[in-house]
Amino acid sequence: MKPMDIEKQSFAIIEKELTTDIPPEYKPVVKRVIHTTADFSYETSMMFSDGVIEKALMAIREGTEIVTDTNMAKSGISHKIAEKFGCSLNCYMADEGVAKEAASRETTRAVVSVEKAAKDNPGCIMVVGNAPTALMRIRELYDEGTFAPRLVIGVPVGFVNVVEAKEEIIESGMPYIVARGRKGGSNVAAAIMNALFYMAADDDKEWRRC
Amino acid sequence: MKPMDIEKQSFAIIEKELTTDIPPEYKPVVKRVIHTTADFSYETSMMFSDGVIEKALMAIREGTEIVTDTNMAKSGISHKIAEKFGCSLNCYMADEGVAKEAASRETTRAVVSVEKAAKDNPGCIMVVGNAPTALMRIRELYDEGTFAPRLVIGVPVGFVNVVEAKEEIIESGMPYIVARGRKGGSNVAAAIMNALFYMAADDDKEWRRC
Repeated sequence: MKPMDIEKQSFAIIEKELTTDIPPEYKPVVKRVIHTTADFSYETSMMFSDGVIEKALMAIREGTEIVTDTNMAKSGISHKIAEKFGCSLNCYMADEGVAKEAASRETTRAVVSVEKAAKDNPGCIMVVGNAPTALMRIRELYDEGTFAPRLVIGVPVGFVNVVEAKEEIIESGMPYIVARGRKGGSNVAAAIMNALFYMAADDDKEWRRC
Repeated sequence: MKPMDIEKQSFAIIEKELTTDIPPEYKPVVKRVIHTTADFSYETSMMFSDGVIEKALMAIREGTEIVTDTNMAKSGISHKIAEKFGCSLNCYMADEGVAKEAASRETTRAVVSVEKAAKDNPGCIMVVGNAPTALMRIRELYDEGTFAPRLVIGVPVGFVNVVEAKEEIIESGMPYIVARGRKGGSNVAAAIMNALFYMAADDDKEWRRC
């Protein structure tokens, strides 16, 4: 069986096993997350701000910069499609300057990375699969009026501050896609970004069959 | 709160919420997978071959090569600790030669990557978080007597051939750590490898507190 056939069959199984009535525009995102995790709890935990899909597809088609909070999420996003749309993929977590500044300020590298994104790419798509502190800093800078990401993908996984940080994004007024609760991760973050890319390339097979 | 404190508190929460009696030698692995996924179903789905932890730690301490089936898994493994033990991290999926051969033979790149691992690193640790075909090819080469990995981490996620491919590894006689069922992923694969690294560095804080 060829990889594309396996994916097609997998999406058919997911479609069959869904138990929630998911709006068609969100379905490709939710299904791709389930495809990545085999976890159907995302059916009910995924939250979307009004009109976020349309805004995300427009941002992609305009070649908006993408900033991730882990190199793992960056690595999981399709470089091929990102390049096709001219969307640069950036992660500042391993930058020496970021590490130094975080150490001297006794904060997380995720916080310093967000500040760097706000400065260098103020209208970027923020992809957060790991660090709740990244989400909290995004919210602060947004409230201060110094950062307005075109989309926040907020799906860190974890047990401390994660649930709360996601609610901060949901209540912020920013366009968001968030997996409520503890679950998420770099793989989920990458899956959401990839689902949006496939939707933006609407001549793409992956989107047509979702 | 500092990142290390957050991790410490997270592991304390996980310990408190565990409902299964997990043998102490497996616990650091299972808990790190739950830390990565916030999914307690791994408590019961994770399977370990007899003596696998001891074998894995010995392989790590001898600087065994590690081969992953995705660049995402490679990216999620701690490069710092791998380097400390002299364990090289390899992923052949993006190699041009692998892609060409897979296309000409009408097979997956994962299959060709496994064959390359068997040829170049016959006693490696195989980390499989994505491709069931990788697990099936590992089993075939093992049965043929041409590949004997020192450990197979078998945690692909998915809906087609995944459950079966994992059983092939469990029944093989190879040292394995497998997440039975559909769930897993590159993040889970990396978490397992990292847990083993932390255990091998037994002076490490992460392992002491598990």
